[in-house]
Amino acid sequence: MLGLFFGLVRYTEMSDNAMDQVQRYYKYFIDVQIMIFVGFGFLMTFMRRYSLGAVSLNYLASALMMLEAVLVIGATQQGFWNQKSSKIQIDIALLIDCSFCAGSGMIAFGAIIGKATPTQLLWLLVWQVPLYALNQHLVIHTFKALDMGGTIVIHLFGAYYGLAASLMLSWRQPLHGLDHPKNASSYLNDVFSMVGTLFLWIYWPSFNGALASVAPESLATATDAQKMSQFLCIVNTLLSLLGAVLSTFATSALVTGRLSMVHVQNSTLAGGVAMGAACTLRLTPGGALCVGLFAGCVSTLGFSYLTPFLDRTIGLGDTCGVHNLHGIPAIIGTLVAGLASLGQHSDYLMYGTGREQLGWEVLAGGVTLGIAVSGGLLGAWVVTALNLTRSEPMDVSELFDDGPWWEGQRVEPL
Amino acid sequence: MLGLFFGLVRYTEMSDNAMDQVQRYYKYFIDVQIMIFVGFGFLMTFMRRYSLGAVSLNYLASALMMLEAVLVIGATQQGFWNQKSSKIQIDIALLIDCSFCAGSGMIAFGAIIGKATPTQLLWLLVWQVPLYALNQHLVIHTFKALDMGGTIVIHLFGAYYGLAASLMLSWRQPLHGLDHPKNASSYLNDVFSMVGTLFLWIYWPSFNGALASVAPESLATATDAQKMSQFLCIVNTLLSLLGAVLSTFATSALVTGRLSMVHVQNSTLAGGVAMGAACTLRLTPGGALCVGLFAGCVSTLGFSYLTPFLDRTIGLGDTCGVHNLHGIPAIIGTLVAGLASLGQHSDYLMYGTGREQLGWEVLAGGVTLGIAVSGGLLGAWVVTALNLTRSEPMDVSELFDDGPWWEGQRVEPL
Amino acid sequence: MLGLFFGLVRYTEMSDNAMDQVQRYYKYFIDVQIMIFVGFGFLMTFMRRYSLGAVSLNYLASALMMLEAVLVIGATQQGFWNQKSSKIQIDIALLIDCSFCAGSGMIAFGAIIGKATPTQLLWLLVWQVPLYALNQHLVIHTFKALDMGGTIVIHLFGAYYGLAASLMLSWRQPLHGLDHPKNASSYLNDVFSMVGTLFLWIYWPSFNGALASVAPESLATATDAQKMSQFLCIVNTLLSLLGAVLSTFATSALVTGRLSMVHVQNSTLAGGVAMGAACTLRLTPGGALCVGLFAGCVSTLGFSYLTPFLDRTIGLGDTCGVHNLHGIPAIIGTLVAGLASLGQHSDYLMYGTGREQLGWEVLAGGVTLGIAVSGGLLGAWVVTALNLTRSEPMDVSELFDDGPWWEGQRVEPL
Repeated sequence: MLGLFFGLVRYTEMSDNAMDQVQRYYKYFIDVQIMIFVGFGFLMTFMRRYSLGAVSLNYLASALMMLEAVLVIGATQQGFWNQKSSKIQIDIALLIDCSFCAGSGMIAFGAIIGKATPTQLLWLLVWQVPLYALNQHLVIHTFKALDMGGTIVIHLFGAYYGLAASLMLSWRQPLHGLDHPKNASSYLNDVFSMVGTLFLWIYWPSFNGALASVAPESLATATDAQKMSQFLCIVNTLLSLLGAVLSTFATSALVTGRLSMVHVQNSTLAGGVAMGAACTLRLTPGGALCVGLFAGCVSTLGFSYLTPFLDRTIGLGDTCGVHNLHGIPAIIGTLVAGLASLGQHSDYLMYGTGREQLGWEVLAGGVTLGIAVSGGLLGAWVVTALNLTRSEPMDVSELFDDGPWWEGQRVEPL
Repeated sequence: MLGLFFGLVRYTEMSDNAMDQVQRYYKYFIDVQIMIFVGFGFLMTFMRRYSLGAVSLNYLASALMMLEAVLVIGATQQGFWNQKSSKIQIDIALLIDCSFCAGSGMIAFGAIIGKATPTQLLWLLVWQVPLYALNQHLVIHTFKALDMGGTIVIHLFGAYYGLAASLMLSWRQPLHGLDHPKNASSYLNDVFSMVGTLFLWIYWPSFNGALASVAPESLATATDAQKMSQFLCIVNTLLSLLGAVLSTFATSALVTGRLSMVHVQNSTLAGGVAMGAACTLRLTPGGALCVGLFAGCVSTLGFSYLTPFLDRTIGLGDTCGVHNLHGIPAIIGTLVAGLASLGQHSDYLMYGTGREQLGWEVLAGGVTLGIAVSGGLLGAWVVTALNLTRSEPMDVSELFDDGPWWEGQRVEPL
Repeated sequence: MLGLFFGLVRYTEMSDNAMDQVQRYYKYFIDVQIMIFVGFGFLMTFMRRYSLGAVSLNYLASALMMLEAVLVIGATQQGFWNQKSSKIQIDIALLIDCSFCAGSGMIAFGAIIGKATPTQLLWLLVWQVPLYALNQHLVIHTFKALDMGGTIVIHLFGAYYGLAASLMLSWRQPLHGLDHPKNASSYLNDVFSMVGTLFLWIYWPSFNGALASVAPESLATATDAQKMSQFLCIVNTLLSLLGAVLSTFATSALVTGRLSMVHVQNSTLAGGVAMGAACTLRLTPGGALCVGLFAGCVSTLGFSYLTPFLDRTIGLGDTCGVHNLHGIPAIIGTLVAGLASLGQHSDYLMYGTGREQLGWEVLAGGVTLGIAVSGGLLGAWVVTALNLTRSEPMDVSELFDDGPWWEGQRVEPL
């Protein structure tokens, strides 16, 4: 990899506007980094026996994916095989994209955490990057789907890649799901997890709007839709997130009779996922709020009913419930973007009519699902059935326990 | 509420300067959000049996208040009953104001945490928003008091609203105060609480200066006082906070013979509260430092002497000590702004002379106290004596224990 | 100190560009503050019996050093004895420098934490500030060394100051090192420590690039090297940090057979230290990555082999391993900057040729080492042998235990 970096990656040359670029992107880049490294890392520390594994492997895997993504996404986007340039130009916008790619990986990680060895995990995530780049290329460049905040490219893709891998990993593994005694939290672990939740929640408008700004030199020729874009991302995402908080607590109280930390930690974020694709549209503030209310409610119901059902029936273990936090809200978000397009001025769309946009949006979602599921199954098959990573099979007592991997820690007996 | 959003709230139209607005306000908005959701939420996790309740109810209540504030503050500020506009225009500056309003609510929460059911809490905070909007209107628009950082509008109001409510809530409740065995911390809980303290402390200059910037289009006609305003907010607030840290540790060592985490977690922040009203003035750096040194010292003494005294005499339970962190420092801050006005050039004031400004400042403080105390008493009377929320009375063992509300948790026996 | 503030410190007058200054520096100032107060504070909470002491004394000492630094660094940089100005002009760039100075102090704190009383600690850090200012003056103004991110001035200086003080403090103190049973972590403490690690890691590009921007009014006459400077700081630092994460995990796995949280918490940050001096240069992305890979590897090996060796042979206790996180990576970083200068265009250097730059870089590193070691030994000699602070000698059971200093805590028996 070091060789490829030396051979292929160069700084973007932009003496005149390097300051502009820092001004324009750097704050958003850091905000996204906090979400990936602190947000996802701490969200997963709810596991009482896998907190160190959660935050540390999140750290390692995100760093690895970012570096790989500089090469793979850089090459895909800048298409140097098309002679546009023979080198990858690295700049802060590309780094945001690489951070997004790592985010997609950390979503997948949430589905398989505690059930794969670190080696298996890393190979699965390394394999995810080229698929991510391919899918991003198709969704954004080929299909021209609306997806400023990555509902399709990041969340839908990451969640179903991880879920497919999880299904394959747990194939003949007993106790890989909700019944495992170590797949549980503790009081202080739940507080730690809220560090992750809150930083994700607060910075989500930056996530969805990170790339939505207009370059200062294009401001004169930009349409109103472009000039309003980042503002709309921020306001729509915030309102959707606020709605999701309310509906999550309300649904949780109705369903459990009390309140559940699992819901608070996760479903309150569904509003950000569901708004990622549509955030550049004029949904009206009421519309944005409505999307969040709906997403939070569905996500909470998913945790209460769908996850145990899938766990019982098809053995789909989903340690962090990414299906409810990312998967289903991303499907909602894809449809929201498509349906909302029907009422938009064409300046806000990539196509002349909302109907066309809706069609491409659905296609993008479908193709993403296909690539994610087949890629996840294939990747997990390679690391388990083929066992190319030469990992020893994990004992049941080692599931959801980072004891085997950390110096000074021990596996707790079941 | 959803209906009101659909009917009344619109995006601000500002195609030409939507990017300017994001540039001008967004960083400060996020900084304030971190203070409200992470800062206040984690500050209150010092309670060993109410950490989950602290951070989660802080999350829910802040989100609810922000949405309500978009409607209520939006309507009040934009006065659509005065035909200025028939809709509420939502923009990032309004969202900062809504986040401030939630902050005021979280201060009040600090006084009653652990002593009200979640339902009672939410009704009290929902009732706080219109009072907040009314009081803000009076203080800022009618009295034209100096209050850039919200010393009067946010801290003074929030603290005494909460304290009045707390007094009423604890009327016939035994063991509602310092003697309750669960009104206590633990070693790791104190570390969690420092997450809150430090994020509040670091971002406080953003809080006080969030709305102090000059619009790019007005820069040509702005006075020196306006152009220096945000810079002064930042430097004055920082110096005051630094002073409060030193005097808190020094006073704590003198008073306790050792050091007290309660003081470190809370009184070090008094410098930010005390500087909120005066931060746009030219206090000189020495003056700003002096304000912080004084506020930190008084706040620490309050924790050591005043809180136990009020607890014993009038039964004023104050779980997080908001009287010492927000109440008294806000009184100090109001007087600082008034007195400092005497020596200022009139460009820095809302009135021609400092004497006039001082008078209005004191009046604003007095009116705020009156609205806060009467509003808090009334609100708490409605949820307890009238019991409109139909809450069951809390058992003594349920005070300061979130066991009844969280799935998987239990009430610890006394 | 208050008197000096009143007498000597004034706001910088800059009515026309106060907004520009806030825009240019404020984000970076806050980012650096998060690193100093949250980053260093929580990094040291890994100590199971000194978490409160770590985060609280970090808070107090940083605040104290910042205020002292306003006076001392302000006076040194603005040279009012040279009649340039009779007052210190306080602005946000100066505050960033003061925050850097506190950072240097917190590095030194990491070497002596748990082995000095709070009084001794404060005197040692108060004494560090004038030495820091002197050394900064020599390195930056006299020698004109490249050191945008403070590899030499902050990390090299802070680490060896602290290590020298630690050596002197532990002179006749038994069990001051790795064998002490309280010099240890726990599962949840290791999670807390990751809060520090991740915030340091994420914001490090801001740290290295905080002062690298070009003033808007100088943009027209700035060279390409100046305009690219902040962009290069960000990209180089990020790539180096990413590299350090990978090599730390890899080396840790090779050396321990598993993974060590000590390595993850510390060595992953070595990439930021090693890039501080060279970050404004055109190292190529591959080169920056290479620096990080090397620094992370060396730092991890240092934790595994060098620290135990020095502990055993010369009794150098190094509680947080600052020698491996800051000391050695800073030596690497100094050499990287010097050697990389050989291939740079002179616009990127302070001297006409890279060879000259290399010489001054090495000289700056040597002088810094000399001042740091002699200053640290002298300071610690004053607080121990002379005992000017009148501290009682610490019992072995009080080492690495904050029980004596915190109300409500007790010393745990050995």
